[in-house]
Amino acid sequence: MPQLRLLPRRAWAALFSQLLRPPCTSSPGAVHCHSQGTRDLSPQQMVVREKILDLVVSCFKRHGAKGLDTPAFELKEVLTEKYGEDSGLIYDLKDQGGELLSLRYDLTVPFARYLAMNKVKKMKRYHVGKVWRRESPTVLQGRYREFCQCDFDIAGQFDPMIPDAECLKIMCEILSGLQLGDFLIKVNDRRIMDGMFAVCGVPESKFRAVGSSIDKLDKMSWKDVRHEMVAKKGLAPEVADQIGDYIQCHGGVTLVEQMFQDPRLSQNKQALEGLEDLKLLFEYLTLFGISEKISFDLSLARGLDYYTGVIYEAILLQSPAQAGEEPLSMGSVAAGGRYDGLVGMFDPKGHNVPCVGLSIGVERIFSIVEQRMKTLGERIRTSETQVFVATPQKNFLQERLKLIAELWDAGIKAEMLYKNNPKLLTQLHYCENMGIPLAVIIGEQELKEGVIKLRSVASREEVAIKRENLVAEIQKRLSES
Amino acid sequence: MPQLRLLPRRAWAALFSQLLRPPCTSSPGAVHCHSQGTRDLSPQQMVVREKILDLVVSCFKRHGAKGLDTPAFELKEVLTEKYGEDSGLIYDLKDQGGELLSLRYDLTVPFARYLAMNKVKKMKRYHVGKVWRRESPTVLQGRYREFCQCDFDIAGQFDPMIPDAECLKIMCEILSGLQLGDFLIKVNDRRIMDGMFAVCGVPESKFRAVGSSIDKLDKMSWKDVRHEMVAKKGLAPEVADQIGDYIQCHGGVTLVEQMFQDPRLSQNKQALEGLEDLKLLFEYLTLFGISEKISFDLSLARGLDYYTGVIYEAILLQSPAQAGEEPLSMGSVAAGGRYDGLVGMFDPKGHNVPCVGLSIGVERIFSIVEQRMKTLGERIRTSETQVFVATPQKNFLQERLKLIAELWDAGIKAEMLYKNNPKLLTQLHYCENMGIPLAVIIGEQELKEGVIKLRSVASREEVAIKRENLVAEIQKRLSES
Repeated sequence: MPQLRLLPRRAWAALFSQLLRPPCTSSPGAVHCHSQGTRDLSPQQMVVREKILDLVVSCFKRHGAKGLDTPAFELKEVLTEKYGEDSGLIYDLKDQGGELLSLRYDLTVPFARYLAMNKVKKMKRYHVGKVWRRESPTVLQGRYREFCQCDFDIAGQFDPMIPDAECLKIMCEILSGLQLGDFLIKVNDRRIMDGMFAVCGVPESKFRAVGSSIDKLDKMSWKDVRHEMVAKKGLAPEVADQIGDYIQCHGGVTLVEQMFQDPRLSQNKQALEGLEDLKLLFEYLTLFGISEKISFDLSLARGLDYYTGVIYEAILLQSPAQAGEEPLSMGSVAAGGRYDGLVGMFDPKGHNVPCVGLSIGVERIFSIVEQRMKTLGERIRTSETQVFVATPQKNFLQERLKLIAELWDAGIKAEMLYKNNPKLLTQLHYCENMGIPLAVIIGEQELKEGVIKLRSVASREEVAIKRENLVAEIQKRLSES
Repeated sequence: MPQLRLLPRRAWAALFSQLLRPPCTSSPGAVHCHSQGTRDLSPQQMVVREKILDLVVSCFKRHGAKGLDTPAFELKEVLTEKYGEDSGLIYDLKDQGGELLSLRYDLTVPFARYLAMNKVKKMKRYHVGKVWRRESPTVLQGRYREFCQCDFDIAGQFDPMIPDAECLKIMCEILSGLQLGDFLIKVNDRRIMDGMFAVCGVPESKFRAVGSSIDKLDKMSWKDVRHEMVAKKGLAPEVADQIGDYIQCHGGVTLVEQMFQDPRLSQNKQALEGLEDLKLLFEYLTLFGISEKISFDLSLARGLDYYTGVIYEAILLQSPAQAGEEPLSMGSVAAGGRYDGLVGMFDPKGHNVPCVGLSIGVERIFSIVEQRMKTLGERIRTSETQVFVATPQKNFLQERLKLIAELWDAGIKAEMLYKNNPKLLTQLHYCENMGIPLAVIIGEQELKEGVIKLRSVASREEVAIKRENLVAEIQKRLSES
């Protein structure tokens, strides 16, 4: 699935610029940068990231998907002629002798290659992984060159629109689950778009190039897109204007019905097939209870070459209006579509496996959730430590080591300071700062009496527990909290 | 942390060759390969992989580690002069204009770069991620060019050997937890090795080169290593022979005591520091109850440049002797050490942060666990679906769609066939083949009576449940099983 688009660009850029590191200034004799358009995720960010991924993956599993992993790089020829105008953004590896390799650009093409290579005719799989796109520095503001995608795809020959409807259901479940506020999923069909091009008078050889222009409508005004279509893609102005009329149309299932009545579109076989499928799709979406989230939108193009049928893209309509929160701009956070011809490109005999899928754009969702947590001042624990092993006395390292090993061996998450003689106050402050709920304290007195002090860090209450009952008591307390 | 070594190579190769795909033969007009030395992980393999990673990560979290993520590629200069003779295995990206980039070779150097870049002086972090090494095709048998590493590292200035001992404890917990059979962790110290080189008469400029030769002892005989040291590295034969005498020594804490008495080694300041630390380390390992798993071994060299103190490597001693199972060869599955100078290489002022860490070699563990499951004929469920939605009747797609959406919305993992009119037998076979425990069946009769049939797939027992109680009943059954 392709990278998701920005809408509108400037507002997103403002949001992202807070999260992007300032450009590195190199000091002589020292390297302290990562490469442009990439970033490290700090422990705080990793916690947010993992929460999001857990929710996404558990939704994919709820829909019966199996996991799959593919290499970060593919033979260069695997990626060739799959991405249209975006192919220039593919990272190639240096020719160090041997094969010519490229970093994967999405998770869809490797999936199709996997299906063909293993002659798999039917599969429902998810894949969470990084992809790489060499976006030019001028568009890097607000984008990354390395980013994470979460893909769900259904491969196989099935009755029409049932898997497609499930993909839209999954998008709804994930976007609702993440509580990103109100959202809308735009739907169109490549066959309707191509039919529209045909009846407007676009020559077939220019379908994909004109589609690429329309795909830029979230970054450029219609005026600029029209100019590109006429000046760069060589469309007649009146053809461009006819397209301009169509792509203003968006609405629900009634628009589908209307388009059946469109005197020109209804004459186009391809467009009719697309409309038939959309009608069926809306029927299923109604049964799933999500049709009010879906908008048939003739301006939706999707940039990539490989789509053959229904396409879709989810946008956020507004930020969740929390008290004191800066309103966030809208943005595309998930997308996908049907690609029935891609697997055949990898099969020696051209045998096809129809596929439909979706991709969740984690980076943008991540930015929104991170921003929200910052605004709400939510504190994030970056470690899961449950018990801290402390001592008030000098020369108690040995006892602390024995005790902490006992806790680890019982599966309890435990830490201590790596000092021979830490101060008690330092140790207790560490617990408070790190949000560790329990501390066990061992000293001479305790050792003599065969007990350990168990302290609740929050309430500062301490009780003496018999050494042999300590693990059980800790486990009891942890299970209660 | 570096890639883990094979021991002995041939036996591993035999094991791996079963798992490696046969070389691709290209057909004209079709690409159906992945690149050499990489592989896809099938859903079955992903389940095994995830089980292993879950165990490893939960151990890291038990020891208080925070997560961190870094980009797949770094500025080329970040990786320069960190890996000694192995630097030739680094993958470079093609110069497409802009920065010169390389794929990361391990997770240790990016961690050090992160610490320096963010001026972090103290951190306990784990990182699970892929790394890439351009192994030559001749050594590819049994190795991958893309593989997963699980690293745990402790950065910061602490009292000696406390974090180092925890790293060894973690290795023991993971290797025991994975039930890989008996294992041993070899320990040495770079300062003892360098001291040994010095007293044997190796010029200091050749320490790392000679160390690299010794590091090959798991793949080459001593005779061949000696030949390399003399012929290629220019050591005098009698110097090589003196080294040969030392590196035969291995044993427990008593060997440490013995080496203190060694007339030549005990004259070397560096070696003495290393021995002092090892002595303390063994004291802590005894308190952790793992000292019998640790062997001081003067032949342990570790190939990488950046180690400065204690180094270690875990090997499996035998396969778990399961009935009917082929005995597996021994192999190195985890390794690490102390690297106190690496962070300073990235700091403009050369400020250092002492670090110690370990890396788990997931690929080899994965092969062993996979092999064991195959031998035992363990069946792996690749999806987690709990309930299948079926119908015995035609034209019941709408009811199935409504019902399955209800289950999904209640968080239940549910599937149905993407057919308008599937046969009941096909549907029930699907449940049995996929190991789905429950099926809900809806037909005209049920619809009329406002009930759903709930079927236990294993026992084939069916009961009618009121539609409004269905979700609760399913959740009850799932929580009991």
